[in-house]
Amino acid sequence: MNGAESLVHTLLDGGVDVCFTNPGTSEMHFVSALDRIDGMRCVLGLFEGVVTGAADGYARMTGKPAATLLHLGPGLANGNANLHNAGRARTPVVNIVGDHTSYHRQHDAPLTSDVEGTARPFSKWVRTSRDANAVSRDGADAIVAARSPTAGVATLILPADTAWGEAVGPTEVPPPPARAIVDDKVITLAAEALRGPGPKLLFLGNAALLGDGLKYAARIAEATGAHLLAETFNPRFERGAGRLAVERLQYSISHALDTLGELSTIVLAGAKVPVAFFAHPGKPSVLLPQSCEVATLATPDEDIVQALAALADLIGARTDRKVEALEPPALPHGAITLPGLAAVIGALIPDQGIVVDESVTSGRGLFPATRNSRPHDWLQNVGGSIGFGMPAATGAAIACPDRKVLCLEADGCGMFTLQSLWSQAREGLDITTVIFANREYAILKQELANVGVPSPGPKALDLLNIGRPDLDWVGLARSMGVEAGRATTLEELADQLGRGLATPGPYLVELVM
Amino acid sequence: MNGAESLVHTLLDGGVDVCFTNPGTSEMHFVSALDRIDGMRCVLGLFEGVVTGAADGYARMTGKPAATLLHLGPGLANGNANLHNAGRARTPVVNIVGDHTSYHRQHDAPLTSDVEGTARPFSKWVRTSRDANAVSRDGADAIVAARSPTAGVATLILPADTAWGEAVGPTEVPPPPARAIVDDKVITLAAEALRGPGPKLLFLGNAALLGDGLKYAARIAEATGAHLLAETFNPRFERGAGRLAVERLQYSISHALDTLGELSTIVLAGAKVPVAFFAHPGKPSVLLPQSCEVATLATPDEDIVQALAALADLIGARTDRKVEALEPPALPHGAITLPGLAAVIGALIPDQGIVVDESVTSGRGLFPATRNSRPHDWLQNVGGSIGFGMPAATGAAIACPDRKVLCLEADGCGMFTLQSLWSQAREGLDITTVIFANREYAILKQELANVGVPSPGPKALDLLNIGRPDLDWVGLARSMGVEAGRATTLEELADQLGRGLATPGPYLVELVM
Repeated sequence: MNGAESLVHTLLDGGVDVCFTNPGTSEMHFVSALDRIDGMRCVLGLFEGVVTGAADGYARMTGKPAATLLHLGPGLANGNANLHNAGRARTPVVNIVGDHTSYHRQHDAPLTSDVEGTARPFSKWVRTSRDANAVSRDGADAIVAARSPTAGVATLILPADTAWGEAVGPTEVPPPPARAIVDDKVITLAAEALRGPGPKLLFLGNAALLGDGLKYAARIAEATGAHLLAETFNPRFERGAGRLAVERLQYSISHALDTLGELSTIVLAGAKVPVAFFAHPGKPSVLLPQSCEVATLATPDEDIVQALAALADLIGARTDRKVEALEPPALPHGAITLPGLAAVIGALIPDQGIVVDESVTSGRGLFPATRNSRPHDWLQNVGGSIGFGMPAATGAAIACPDRKVLCLEADGCGMFTLQSLWSQAREGLDITTVIFANREYAILKQELANVGVPSPGPKALDLLNIGRPDLDWVGLARSMGVEAGRATTLEELADQLGRGLATPGPYLVELVM
Repeated sequence: MNGAESLVHTLLDGGVDVCFTNPGTSEMHFVSALDRIDGMRCVLGLFEGVVTGAADGYARMTGKPAATLLHLGPGLANGNANLHNAGRARTPVVNIVGDHTSYHRQHDAPLTSDVEGTARPFSKWVRTSRDANAVSRDGADAIVAARSPTAGVATLILPADTAWGEAVGPTEVPPPPARAIVDDKVITLAAEALRGPGPKLLFLGNAALLGDGLKYAARIAEATGAHLLAETFNPRFERGAGRLAVERLQYSISHALDTLGELSTIVLAGAKVPVAFFAHPGKPSVLLPQSCEVATLATPDEDIVQALAALADLIGARTDRKVEALEPPALPHGAITLPGLAAVIGALIPDQGIVVDESVTSGRGLFPATRNSRPHDWLQNVGGSIGFGMPAATGAAIACPDRKVLCLEADGCGMFTLQSLWSQAREGLDITTVIFANREYAILKQELANVGVPSPGPKALDLLNIGRPDLDWVGLARSMGVEAGRATTLEELADQLGRGLATPGPYLVELVM
């Protein structure tokens, strides 16, 4: 058994049985090991941002890491933007990167690079295997690091000779750890904070938005009069009919300050203190009043649902809020508008659909319009590095082959990782992508004004315009093997979206705005 | 004047008047400064790998750096693969990266990242501006660092408040320094080495392949009986009719060992000691016999042409080798073959054409078939991180608007940075791209065997196959605004290539192999 084989066995033992990859020469022994060992599904991406974003989407839906397999420092660099997003979403990823053979590094061949240095800014755990015998132990440690309570990206670097050298057998991987239970004293402090005077907020993030989290949060809100709100961007949200709804804090600093500006108390349940996404001149970074009391009920790494249950119990909060009824919006007609496209999507989200949302400015109306849709999961770009949507949809579809994936993608974002469509075609994934083709970086126009540039001139505007020439998304999709159609009215959107969702396999709708 | 404006003035003063960019919120003040100050050409890329690769191609043809403008750590990460290539080619690049406002970093907003850590592995110079007043001085230092004799990537990180804050005026940029003159003693040692017994090689790289470098090298070869050879991958090569031809060292380790295995002496003129691109089990990393004497005439950073001239003078080498005649290959007919496609390209390279070559396995026959073509420049991927070709062609066309650019691109490589085509369409660049659509990572099949995996199974082969589904490159190009056609025979290739070269603006030929 060589090092690569010992690693593949170890990964499988640790429940890691999907590998997203774009390999190169230094990874050939790992690729070859996949041939000889059953059990690992391999998914090729034509660019590394597809690979790492897919690993993110996959793990958000399965709760367990996928492996990636990337080629040296530059290949890893190409995957780092979506690893940033995965890290911010606390998604476990076992990132495997080949490197030059140990004895070859000193010769500074053209592809020599500082792989550890490339990994460190976007990985919470980095290790280079010293020899073939170390590989399986390192692989087990990588899995443990990735899925620890402070979950994230673990990067294991394999010099080629550690993959091809003779190795001891695989290493057993311990079962995933339970999340830390929040101490009773912390629960008591949170209860006291919620008894104080003035406006109070129970601020929810991460696992608070899954399972019974919202049920307990709503009981607490009912009993204490606290307002409920979720973070602006969330890894995964269970929503729609039969679930409890909660609004998100707005992205806009002004709107967020309107919401938070009078708070006396905020209790954080899996959320962090709300801060501006970007600093704007003359506006605060922290979006709470200075006098606001901050109590942390549970960090994102702790057992948030347990903490909410214990808090509800302590304060005797037993009144359940009514779950959302199944009342999808009626299909609207006419010209494309933000409320109109949101209503079409709200009307058509399939039962147990997985919505991957990187719609940016075009998606403003989506959240309220989908409150009473069929039950679904909602995945967002938590890290803010664009090009997340289509890769994450790819991974989510691999994770959940029996569920339909709806990817809502801004055109500017989509162009960063459009190669995803080819992987969707190759794997026959049941993903319908809607491209919001407004043909500009619309959010940057707003940000220009927000940072104090109210009237941009022609050169600045040209850099925010991606419509000269217009991108033909139907053509792009078809050229990568994905059937596609164009919608220019709300009727056509309903028709195209319905067609995509009704037929198996990938489909793309270009919504011309 | 704010910090951003002081930087734009400083860049222009330093001769940096093209900015390739994909900006975000933290760069909006720089974008706005471009509006108010004349003289900077701004070119938008829809992905950062396009931006940095274009800066590489631009500087290779102009000899002076372009600026880039990138968004935070993840945006920089997306550009790092082509910065790796630029660094390996010793291309000067002034890489400007926005960051969060200084006082905002502590709050760990979603896009917070270690920008300096992201820059360091792929930049030779990294600095974060401390305040608005420091920006113009830092910009001047970045230009100096980028175009110093050890040229490469200089990354200047601008926290948003250093761009919007009030600043002193621009900083004057000193003129570019001359390359270091090689010491007479070194010339003498090289002459002595070439007088020794046994097979000798004068090994050429970098500036030895430009201007009069080859003329002097050929005189030295004539006088000493030394063999002449260029490095395998070179930033820029002046070739074709009226120039002297020189072969390159082969990529294959076995072939390289056949060439170098009996050498007594190697003299390095702007080249490094030849090493394997990747280590292969049981084969050496250094491709010279242990007994081979190594003499360095000039490092890549020194004045290589001067050193060759001085050496030729010292040994009295005055016999010029005959330059290549203008004898392009005849246009061949029939099915696509490697020699056939090379002949078509050799026949049609336009006068003063710029060839950007990332053809990988499909381009094996290109070099000999273009020896007697019309005079042209040949640019290669020196760093080995794929996705170099189409971005570099974009930059070369911006650099030389009066010359035609021919981009020879392997399909696997092309998919990494296909967004380049949109920038080519937007800017109306005179680039003809030939995509070698062999629908596989053909080189990896060979590398599998080279690293000791002679008979790959179906899973491994599937990861090296990009033809399920086939990519439609004609459709991809048209969808990004670039006219395109397909060739399945040599006649069709000649017809399509001729059409692309004859008409202004971008054109793409998908060559189905």
